[in-house]
Amino acid sequence: MDGRSARKRQAIMDAATKLFLANGYQGTSMDEIAALAEVSKQTVYKNFADKRQLFAEIVLKAASRADEFIRAIPQVLADAPDVEAGLRTLARRYLAAVMQPALLQLRRLVVSEAGRFPDLARDYYKLAPDHVMATLAIQFDELSKKGMLDIDNPAAAASQYAFLVLGLPLDRAMFLGAEHGLTPAAMNQHADAAVGVFLAAHQPL
Amino acid sequence: MDGRSARKRQAIMDAATKLFLANGYQGTSMDEIAALAEVSKQTVYKNFADKRQLFAEIVLKAASRADEFIRAIPQVLADAPDVEAGLRTLARRYLAAVMQPALLQLRRLVVSEAGRFPDLARDYYKLAPDHVMATLAIQFDELSKKGMLDIDNPAAAASQYAFLVLGLPLDRAMFLGAEHGLTPAAMNQHADAAVGVFLAAHQPL
Repeated sequence: MDGRSARKRQAIMDAATKLFLANGYQGTSMDEIAALAEVSKQTVYKNFADKRQLFAEIVLKAASRADEFIRAIPQVLADAPDVEAGLRTLARRYLAAVMQPALLQLRRLVVSEAGRFPDLARDYYKLAPDHVMATLAIQFDELSKKGMLDIDNPAAAASQYAFLVLGLPLDRAMFLGAEHGLTPAAMNQHADAAVGVFLAAHQPL
Repeated sequence: MDGRSARKRQAIMDAATKLFLANGYQGTSMDEIAALAEVSKQTVYKNFADKRQLFAEIVLKAASRADEFIRAIPQVLADAPDVEAGLRTLARRYLAAVMQPALLQLRRLVVSEAGRFPDLARDYYKLAPDHVMATLAIQFDELSKKGMLDIDNPAAAASQYAFLVLGLPLDRAMFLGAEHGLTPAAMNQHADAAVGVFLAAHQPL
């Protein structure tokens, strides 16, 4: 794909994202997407078979944004002076990654369209939240084998960590949107407290 | 309101709930609601000023379903032989209450319409999740004052408890719907493990 085609394709995805977030899947037409992207409707259909495919590509691209955080997990833990420091850094980064306004809006959109697109919602769940937790579970298991954590069930421990860190802020964001009322400082404090609870349960004696 | 009027009003709310859940707010018309409820459009408008008001009443009625659980919280804790048993019973009831399929669907609908109806989403959040956590915080504070828990920040402890118990199952249900894959037995096991983590952090030495 040449540069001009790639730019057009990106413009279509940006326009579609904006419209889907504002008006939902059903409330958005391919005509509107073409108009906002300043391309012909023909160009839209040359790039995307239909609205459904365009929506799926946007959602899966958003899910792939979890990859950066997932790749960082082992390194963050390895670079920290001790387990507690590693878990704290990780918790803050996890929260910062998930609480990006554009990602929160997309998450809400995926949830709201999950009835219409169950396979897409499932793919998103597997690629993003589930993949993060599976990666955490592997790391926690390794730390446990080295005697640095005390964990019987790594998958359960990973979900405890995830929801201690993310549960409240994410739930507030889903209902209250940008008015979730958590400053970056409050989120860091929340992340530290979450790690405190997790370690109380899983620190070796 | 006589019995016949009350029945008609309920039929309208039931029909509207069904249609909103299936087709979203924008995808539902007052005409369709009247048809499904088997009443005239005039009757719909005699009961509800507009679609917006009808939607708001449905959401706030769903939020009020949290009241039953909220009222039970002090009693469940008081009736238990010890704190651990009380927190376990409470966790199982909390999870069972939140994981009701009809409530999950409505929760997803409130989240998806939060952009269009921010005040309504905020009211729902205050009346349901936030009210439950505030009630838990009061109880945890009392238990802490009696020396039965060790808690500095009751609000933070309440949210830790809430998301240890609910976080994973609720997130799975939001993305995967009825296919969330958690049997009642798995949910009970999850609730017990959540209480274990919570107590590791907050049990008095």
